[in-house]
Amino acid sequence: MHEFELIQRCFADWPGRHAQVLTGIGDDGLVWQDPRPLVISTDTAVVGRHFPVDASPEQVAGRAFLPALSDLAAMGASPAFFTLALTLPARLNNASEPNIESWIQAFATELRRLAIAHKCMLAGGDTTAGEQLTLTLSVHGTCAQPVLRSGAQVGDAVWVTGQLGQAAAALPLILAGNAAAAPPAWLAAYWQPKPQIALAEQLAVFLHSAIDISDGLLGDAGHLARSSQVDLHLNLNALPLDADLVALGDRGLQYALAGGDDYQLCFTAGMNAGEQIERIAQSLGVRVSRIGEVRQGTGQLHWYDDDRKRDLPWQSFEHF
Amino acid sequence: MHEFELIQRCFADWPGRHAQVLTGIGDDGLVWQDPRPLVISTDTAVVGRHFPVDASPEQVAGRAFLPALSDLAAMGASPAFFTLALTLPARLNNASEPNIESWIQAFATELRRLAIAHKCMLAGGDTTAGEQLTLTLSVHGTCAQPVLRSGAQVGDAVWVTGQLGQAAAALPLILAGNAAAAPPAWLAAYWQPKPQIALAEQLAVFLHSAIDISDGLLGDAGHLARSSQVDLHLNLNALPLDADLVALGDRGLQYALAGGDDYQLCFTAGMNAGEQIERIAQSLGVRVSRIGEVRQGTGQLHWYDDDRKRDLPWQSFEHF
Repeated sequence: MHEFELIQRCFADWPGRHAQVLTGIGDDGLVWQDPRPLVISTDTAVVGRHFPVDASPEQVAGRAFLPALSDLAAMGASPAFFTLALTLPARLNNASEPNIESWIQAFATELRRLAIAHKCMLAGGDTTAGEQLTLTLSVHGTCAQPVLRSGAQVGDAVWVTGQLGQAAAALPLILAGNAAAAPPAWLAAYWQPKPQIALAEQLAVFLHSAIDISDGLLGDAGHLARSSQVDLHLNLNALPLDADLVALGDRGLQYALAGGDDYQLCFTAGMNAGEQIERIAQSLGVRVSRIGEVRQGTGQLHWYDDDRKRDLPWQSFEHF
Repeated sequence: MHEFELIQRCFADWPGRHAQVLTGIGDDGLVWQDPRPLVISTDTAVVGRHFPVDASPEQVAGRAFLPALSDLAAMGASPAFFTLALTLPARLNNASEPNIESWIQAFATELRRLAIAHKCMLAGGDTTAGEQLTLTLSVHGTCAQPVLRSGAQVGDAVWVTGQLGQAAAALPLILAGNAAAAPPAWLAAYWQPKPQIALAEQLAVFLHSAIDISDGLLGDAGHLARSSQVDLHLNLNALPLDADLVALGDRGLQYALAGGDDYQLCFTAGMNAGEQIERIAQSLGVRVSRIGEVRQGTGQLHWYDDDRKRDLPWQSFEHF
């Protein structure tokens, strides 16, 4: 059928074939060979759930691909290749791009641009028909030694990258059709997440543990604490919140801690690595914030306003 | 939410952790390390498209998992691990199992049974909510040297495994709610495909090329011929058709050649390997049929009734 051939044409012959992919699209499976650890992360994005129904094809490509790369960054891995399982409806319920063929072409063009920019080639996948636009990407990366959630050590400093809460604060405005009311930085955080690949590659040797905080710092730092069987003592006043979020008061803090969609990293490293971490981040133009420390414990988070202990009433953001 | 915890519980702590999976479920990505070639194949199954709406959870597990393994067999690879991206609706439109929680439990139990039986562990994935039950599995296997579609050599014999056409012949009866009218072997072929993993593992050293014929021998043998830039001369009278299919006349032949859903292999090997191939197949209780030979050409198929050339009017089955 026509869409099937169009997809084959749009996704064939992309540049950037990876030397370790022995066989890619065009056989029963793709073949990878490399003695180093291979990190694999799988993410599904469903229209109306993970991106708005009227998102442009370019926006869908970004929202499907970039968050997946953030999982590789959280493992200290460099992107190598990905597979794409694309379920396409016969008609798109999308005012800006109702034509399925031009949708596919625009989507493929943007995905190709992102793949080249992140040195992550398309090496396989599947295309099926279904009622709801659904994308499952598996991204694959390599590393010398993966950085795990479970490696935090007592005495480590706790860090986060970037700004928190901007994407979560933008989402209600986007869904309400009122994106114009959102600061440009919030919209960029939602539509063009910047996975911290380059930073993670350079920091990996210093890191004891790391996690992607796309479900919100509150929940994801909790995962890290439980995996490592330590407590994290975290200072709310050290969190990287922009002025527009701070102006929202407690709601701004809630977006930052429990909102989700921050494709940033929370990581821990020995206290003596702080200077090198700051220097590397600065050289890459990435903000890093030291937000607390690792102490003995059983997997709890403790929050402070500088020195005063504070209880938080919110739960982690749940995608499901 | 409740389903999310249920899924975590159902899929946690499966046995059969693979030695080369350094980290599995519970980190940002899974980590694999093995110097051998890694073969990866991705398949999506959508309710109402790849399995009937009222399929039982056990049937869905089989239809999603076993065909994916057939792609590994076609590469001569042994299963190692898989990822599962599961998109679940809030309500299942399924008369036999409308309760989503009991559906998940039954599905996970059967998938676990199949995973253990095929030594293919669950190592990661994603669960999302959506309108339509959709499963994307990526299966991963290892091999000494992958068998490709492109390796057929002039003078090779062409073989197929198993019986052809049974699953395709069963499908219209199943969809019409008239499964009772189908011979048991047809129903088994549809619901419990038997990927030729063990055979492929033992034959791999003899094979010059192979392909999974799940889209129908007509189309898939054509892919192999074009990839290898050879012609295949194939004898219709040598095809493995059961008596019930033969009784259908030309329609039976069409199911066998263009019906799809045969998770069997078409492969080529040197003429002198024939005796060993027959012996290995016999030892495993698998039927293999020599159906033709490879000659110089440009990727065409030539069909014969023994010595008489014959033209076929049908096209390959298209899933999309």
